[in-house]
Amino acid sequence: MTDLTPPPFSTRHIGPSTDEQQRMLEAVGFESVADLVAVAVPEAIRAKDQLKLPAAASEGEVIAELRALAGRNRVLTSMIGLGYYDTITPAVIRRNLLENPGWYTAYTPYQPEISQGRLEALLNFQTVVSDLTGLDVAGASLLDEGTAAAEAMTLARRAGKAKSDVFVVDADALPQTKAVLATRAEPLGIELVESDFAGELPECFGVLVQYPGASGRVRDFRAVAERAHAAGALVVAAADLLALTLLASPGSLGADIAIGSSQRLGVPFGFGGPHAAYMSVREGLQRQMPGRLVGVSVDADGGPAYRLALQTREQHIRREKATSNICTAQVLLAVIAGMYAVYHGPEGLRRIARRTHAHAVTLAEVLRAGRVEVVHENFFDTVTARVPGDAARIVAEAAARGVNLWQADVDHVSISCDEKTELAHLEQVAAAFGIPAELPALAGESALPASLGREDDYLTHPVFHSHRSETAMLRYLRKLQDKDIALDRSMIPLGSCTMKLNATTEMEPVTWPEFAAVHPYAPAEQTEGYLELIGTLESWLAEVTGYDAVSIQPNAGSQGEFAGLLAIRAYHRANGDTARDVCLIPSSAHGTNAASAVMAGMRVVVVACDDDGNVDLADLDAKIAKHRDALAAIMVTYPSTHGVYEETITEVCAKIHEAGGQVYVDGANLNALVGLAKPGEFGADVSHLNLHKTFCIPHGGGGPGVGPVAVRAHLAAYLPGHALKNGSPVGPVSAAPYGSAGILPISWAYIRMMGGEGLKSATEQAILSANYLARRLAPHYPVLYTGRGGLVAHECIIDLRQITKETGVTVDDVAKRLIDYGFHAPTMSFPVAGTLMIEPTESEDLAELDRFAEAMIAIRAEIAKVASGAYDGTDNPLRNAPHTAEALTSDSWTHPYTRAEAAYPVGSLRDGKYWVPVRRIDQAYGDRNLVCACPPLEAYED
Amino acid sequence: MTDLTPPPFSTRHIGPSTDEQQRMLEAVGFESVADLVAVAVPEAIRAKDQLKLPAAASEGEVIAELRALAGRNRVLTSMIGLGYYDTITPAVIRRNLLENPGWYTAYTPYQPEISQGRLEALLNFQTVVSDLTGLDVAGASLLDEGTAAAEAMTLARRAGKAKSDVFVVDADALPQTKAVLATRAEPLGIELVESDFAGELPECFGVLVQYPGASGRVRDFRAVAERAHAAGALVVAAADLLALTLLASPGSLGADIAIGSSQRLGVPFGFGGPHAAYMSVREGLQRQMPGRLVGVSVDADGGPAYRLALQTREQHIRREKATSNICTAQVLLAVIAGMYAVYHGPEGLRRIARRTHAHAVTLAEVLRAGRVEVVHENFFDTVTARVPGDAARIVAEAAARGVNLWQADVDHVSISCDEKTELAHLEQVAAAFGIPAELPALAGESALPASLGREDDYLTHPVFHSHRSETAMLRYLRKLQDKDIALDRSMIPLGSCTMKLNATTEMEPVTWPEFAAVHPYAPAEQTEGYLELIGTLESWLAEVTGYDAVSIQPNAGSQGEFAGLLAIRAYHRANGDTARDVCLIPSSAHGTNAASAVMAGMRVVVVACDDDGNVDLADLDAKIAKHRDALAAIMVTYPSTHGVYEETITEVCAKIHEAGGQVYVDGANLNALVGLAKPGEFGADVSHLNLHKTFCIPHGGGGPGVGPVAVRAHLAAYLPGHALKNGSPVGPVSAAPYGSAGILPISWAYIRMMGGEGLKSATEQAILSANYLARRLAPHYPVLYTGRGGLVAHECIIDLRQITKETGVTVDDVAKRLIDYGFHAPTMSFPVAGTLMIEPTESEDLAELDRFAEAMIAIRAEIAKVASGAYDGTDNPLRNAPHTAEALTSDSWTHPYTRAEAAYPVGSLRDGKYWVPVRRIDQAYGDRNLVCACPPLEAYED
Repeated sequence: MTDLTPPPFSTRHIGPSTDEQQRMLEAVGFESVADLVAVAVPEAIRAKDQLKLPAAASEGEVIAELRALAGRNRVLTSMIGLGYYDTITPAVIRRNLLENPGWYTAYTPYQPEISQGRLEALLNFQTVVSDLTGLDVAGASLLDEGTAAAEAMTLARRAGKAKSDVFVVDADALPQTKAVLATRAEPLGIELVESDFAGELPECFGVLVQYPGASGRVRDFRAVAERAHAAGALVVAAADLLALTLLASPGSLGADIAIGSSQRLGVPFGFGGPHAAYMSVREGLQRQMPGRLVGVSVDADGGPAYRLALQTREQHIRREKATSNICTAQVLLAVIAGMYAVYHGPEGLRRIARRTHAHAVTLAEVLRAGRVEVVHENFFDTVTARVPGDAARIVAEAAARGVNLWQADVDHVSISCDEKTELAHLEQVAAAFGIPAELPALAGESALPASLGREDDYLTHPVFHSHRSETAMLRYLRKLQDKDIALDRSMIPLGSCTMKLNATTEMEPVTWPEFAAVHPYAPAEQTEGYLELIGTLESWLAEVTGYDAVSIQPNAGSQGEFAGLLAIRAYHRANGDTARDVCLIPSSAHGTNAASAVMAGMRVVVVACDDDGNVDLADLDAKIAKHRDALAAIMVTYPSTHGVYEETITEVCAKIHEAGGQVYVDGANLNALVGLAKPGEFGADVSHLNLHKTFCIPHGGGGPGVGPVAVRAHLAAYLPGHALKNGSPVGPVSAAPYGSAGILPISWAYIRMMGGEGLKSATEQAILSANYLARRLAPHYPVLYTGRGGLVAHECIIDLRQITKETGVTVDDVAKRLIDYGFHAPTMSFPVAGTLMIEPTESEDLAELDRFAEAMIAIRAEIAKVASGAYDGTDNPLRNAPHTAEALTSDSWTHPYTRAEAAYPVGSLRDGKYWVPVRRIDQAYGDRNLVCACPPLEAYED
Repeated sequence: MTDLTPPPFSTRHIGPSTDEQQRMLEAVGFESVADLVAVAVPEAIRAKDQLKLPAAASEGEVIAELRALAGRNRVLTSMIGLGYYDTITPAVIRRNLLENPGWYTAYTPYQPEISQGRLEALLNFQTVVSDLTGLDVAGASLLDEGTAAAEAMTLARRAGKAKSDVFVVDADALPQTKAVLATRAEPLGIELVESDFAGELPECFGVLVQYPGASGRVRDFRAVAERAHAAGALVVAAADLLALTLLASPGSLGADIAIGSSQRLGVPFGFGGPHAAYMSVREGLQRQMPGRLVGVSVDADGGPAYRLALQTREQHIRREKATSNICTAQVLLAVIAGMYAVYHGPEGLRRIARRTHAHAVTLAEVLRAGRVEVVHENFFDTVTARVPGDAARIVAEAAARGVNLWQADVDHVSISCDEKTELAHLEQVAAAFGIPAELPALAGESALPASLGREDDYLTHPVFHSHRSETAMLRYLRKLQDKDIALDRSMIPLGSCTMKLNATTEMEPVTWPEFAAVHPYAPAEQTEGYLELIGTLESWLAEVTGYDAVSIQPNAGSQGEFAGLLAIRAYHRANGDTARDVCLIPSSAHGTNAASAVMAGMRVVVVACDDDGNVDLADLDAKIAKHRDALAAIMVTYPSTHGVYEETITEVCAKIHEAGGQVYVDGANLNALVGLAKPGEFGADVSHLNLHKTFCIPHGGGGPGVGPVAVRAHLAAYLPGHALKNGSPVGPVSAAPYGSAGILPISWAYIRMMGGEGLKSATEQAILSANYLARRLAPHYPVLYTGRGGLVAHECIIDLRQITKETGVTVDDVAKRLIDYGFHAPTMSFPVAGTLMIEPTESEDLAELDRFAEAMIAIRAEIAKVASGAYDGTDNPLRNAPHTAEALTSDSWTHPYTRAEAAYPVGSLRDGKYWVPVRRIDQAYGDRNLVCACPPLEAYED
């Protein structure tokens, strides 16, 4: 009766059916998947055993299990503060953005023409940040406030004139910010000095002021800024965006850089993340700013169009000269924060801030009336009370009344008000202090310093004044979504980015209140469900990778890499090997590797690769010999960034170990290994994974990411620590203890529904699909880099260099022409310029793979027409791609090819064609004329 | 400090801001909304008091309150059956269809060009029904299985040759089907006779067999069908679609008509609804079939296109000659059921059915092994056990074990298996029977009659074989959604249809398991939350309407009307006034009124209207005089279908009452009254409401609807009864006791968030918006029918008859041209042919109202060009509208106007234009060549 068993979830996750798989195997020339894998994947690395994971559960079972875990999180009213404040996510934004695959399955907007919707949304976010902080240029978000502070620190060091190695940190900075700064400062030789700014400012290259402070105190830092500037140091303000609606902007007080979190603009707690941090800088610093930046440019018709600006700053391009290792932003969360501002407008944000402040003032009055000392005269939302010896008792009493407060130390309790605070909460807080306040009246006074009142306008752009009704907001979200290609429209065959299914069942729990509404510092007894989920997920990831310990704290692959290298560094130091600081990196590596190594205080030494992109063993031997005593580690990607299972990987590992080094395997391509091979078993000591790639966390239009670090036992002690707990030899790499905890249910659910067999099948199908596409495209385009049997791993690279040479048709032309065919382009010119890297993933069914292959083949025929002269060399459908409807219906059509050839090169497009909103975008124009906030409406006029 | 209060939900629901409202008032010529209302709404009907409703709650408060109510529903495993079976809604369908405003805010596809997505989805549904029932033509869904059975009964009476008034009903039919049949039969003079078909078939015009029966029994009804046909009677099979995947189709056994529910194809219980019922008929009966029917036709370019077929059958067109009063289908639910079949395919459905059956067989074996008598040898999913005197105890014991069974009577328990049944459930059932079965093994035998094995293929169309992965399903849903205009894209200014905001906060609770997963016959102690919500909602609706009692049972306005008329009828009869059977209906009335009156056994007498659409009082007097002793009721719509507050309404009511009649006020236009006037106070005795209009239940693409009936105290005893409870003088009008209970949280939340003041403001804004549009359009188009001060109520009618006469440009041309401007057309030719009725609702902000006005004005300028000869009389943008991208980019453009004129008549269209997927559809062609199932793929080839 086995045929009655409901088909497992894996049959929904994996695109091709059994029949389709068989047809694909025939095309590739194998009888079975096992035969294919036996040839494709080197025997030496193959795992001996099946994955020891629980048997696959159904979607219904997983929802039930997650509901049980959720039920073990207790959601109390949170007045803990410390950079995390409760907020109301407008339901229209939750349903139509956060819960909408049109937004959450989108990729990073590297192809700007099909990303105009999310780019506009990010521009809104940048405008919010730039306006509120009073600084000229804001980026498209960073990972969290702690890492943003660290990025600001290094930016200050690069850009400042002061010669010092000292960075002065506000004693009233958030504790997790201090901890992350410490982690990041030490390998770079930066000395952190805490200051309350009462006395002299030490010699330094930069200063960070928290505005308002963690204790709630609001101070005017103009004098600090003046002193810093006089000494050639830069001033970083870590500022609260909501407070800035009432307070003078950091820019107006002298800050050069502002950073902070946008969480309280509508983004749920999620037990600490993901949230979007922000950074803005004054004019002159923007080219040194880390992370992504959206700017306005023009398209081929001269109309305004958005795209990522100044991309040459990005780490994957600059490698060891990178200014940061950050690849990922927190796009989805930044978009939510931006939309929150769009929906409320400046007057709405101001009202929320005033109301929050009025509750804090009321609380202070109630406490004072009850003879409790309130520490600060000036505050925005947070009141710190001095209660000698009584703090723990009061906090416990409040928790019993359903409210979490913060025990700053044994003598102090701090209480933060937010958008959700009601007088009834204050009554409970008062009661916890032993004050019988019955529903106090809302106070009318202000506790903000008179000198710091905000006087300038902000959010004056019409977008912040046009979408006040739910209907209008809904339509704005739909309009932007419709401009973009995400996974809900078509395949996104991006090599190395693994755009696979983000299943609804995986996504649904993310917005359940029991996961969404938990503060990262809620007491452990309130978060048992989360802690069990996290522990289980870490153990499953250890099993999948063959490592002994995993930390899910890093909230991006870059942070996982950094954490992995810190572990290696700490290990060597613990062994007395303080001189081991050389990190070998093959020339084919992703630029982030080098950037991370530099951040971890290592020297990068490049190892040559052969023509196939494989590590050159002779050069490796030479480099090992040269740096034997200084050798800290090698960083290799496996399968290689060229999409090949290098045969020599075990040999490489052995050579490094023999020389006393550690092996870092970049887990970017783990989708080609899961269930088949384990880095922790075939020789590596540490890896980071990308949960947003292999483990189904959606890309969110360019973040959130999750980049756990996995290590063998000897490195387990050196995993990232907890910002609020002492004793770790390595500090935290992310602000929140569990990083982007709020989205971990996604990967948990994926592994739980796939089981070991399902995970393995997914990997096998990913390999088969890549090889199927390689075979279909090989007659038309040269396929670069194959391994044994002429096979690729989970992605394939097609080489256009000869075609470009012969016809002038570039990789860019093909990528943009694919838009006309309804596709997002494959990865362009990585790892090799002039190529396209295609990763179909296991989730695409045969029909979609064939649709893509047919598009590529049709494009090849178009290229042939250019070659033959049937198409003009410059005025042809490739060079002019993508074609907008507006261009195609214009009254003058001067091109030597027809409109229909441009619009409908294949018949299937006639049913539901995607219409690109802009023509090809001029990147250089935008970089020359940098505009990074919402342009005035006139810019859109014809 | 009042300015710190968060703005109420009403400011998000109501489109225009205070500033915008002021500008609109200026345009209409009033200082304040109060001034406008004082002129527009007759003093005589104005409510004296504010609505006595709880103060408006915030969105967060309402979610909290609904969570508390949800928490008082206990969700047990349901094995009750009786037409409702548990099912798994695939998560990808729940999130991307049921929870997606692109689907749920769509209107009925009367404008087929902008409805191709949902029409294709409905065609899938029709194909499922037609294939599985083995009958030629299936409709696009009916309200529920009970009313579908009643519709089949009247269809049999109309279409059959037998002269009898007897309809024979299977003794093993569902109890609610029997009860609804009884309610519907009595006023029509139909005699119901129950039969077990063991003996002779009585003389009759039709027979209904339940297949399988309510008790689970599966019988071959071929012999019954033969006998019936021999006597000239028609055979109706009430059949279970899942069972039909294994059983011979009703068509193959001789059924002329099949009806049933598609609930178990992925649609949640929802405490009884909404679910989509189906009807299919053999060739020859389709023109007499009630409800909507999707058919395939061709567009102006000859390509295939979908639209509603045979629309002239519809009740609003045929009036008293209507075959049914059903206006609404259950589109959203039918689409879900169709998509469930698309996702599972025939092999998946068959596997689910086999598994369900195997569990039932296993249960029967376990029971028999435990010496419990199993009543039927042949069954599909339901096992009836004979347990003399023990039934109640066993059912209680099972409930204590988390499983609801059904107590058929004191001696019988029936247990229904479904998609979700597991062996662990059977173990609990066995234990409740006192049988210590430890996880039985799944049986391999079949308990289906050998003679009834299904042998033909079904669902062979590619659509049922192409979307097996979640990714593919997601994209299919997105593709269809993108073809349509729903409220998430633009205003839908449909007069009399009130397309207002369906707020996310109202919608979210619908899919919470505590509301979605409750069987309608779950014991009352498990449904306290639902019962309280329903009671509260009924009391609020009574307060809003000024009536004394409300029943939310009717699951469409048509059913509410029918219920209201039944109450009047029963009241007269209780008073001994058996001769009162005349129902006066003004000539301006909606056709459903007449159809409902006929169904309620009344004679329709039409009362004349004057040129302004108002009731002609002289004619009314004459008709009253003529029918004084027979006068049962008058049915009037208020404000009138012409969108005017008739001054004489109180006079009309008085005249009817004086003559001993009752006043029925059709609540279709309640959006113009809420908070300002109460029908129950200004003279009416009964009304139905449309929750899917005034109270924010979304239209769902043409259903679900909810049509509560509200009455004054003297009629309260005659509200619809409960199918399973005796003692009501009037039977149930809908199958489920609380109708479409599952969506009632929407209206509950709306009223709770608006409060009395908010509801009143919404009405005022709706009136202002209609008058604003009337003023903006009046210089360009004549506005028909205004009341005092030249004002309209909540909608306005513009008259194109003179324009058509002068230019040949028709209402149709304007409607289709509006598609090119990105709009859904207003209501066409209702209530007056050659006009457009525009209802903006309160939810549209000023920018959208102006965008619409500008489109209409631009179209008027185009019409002027036709008049002046600047445009050709037949080859112009109006006549050729709508224009597809394909037509606009074709290589040959022969029209005497430009492509850009066709595509972008106003500049704002260049940012995010909606592209219509087909050109104007030829209605007549499709009716001549009726195709109502998925056409073969070749039909789509060029």
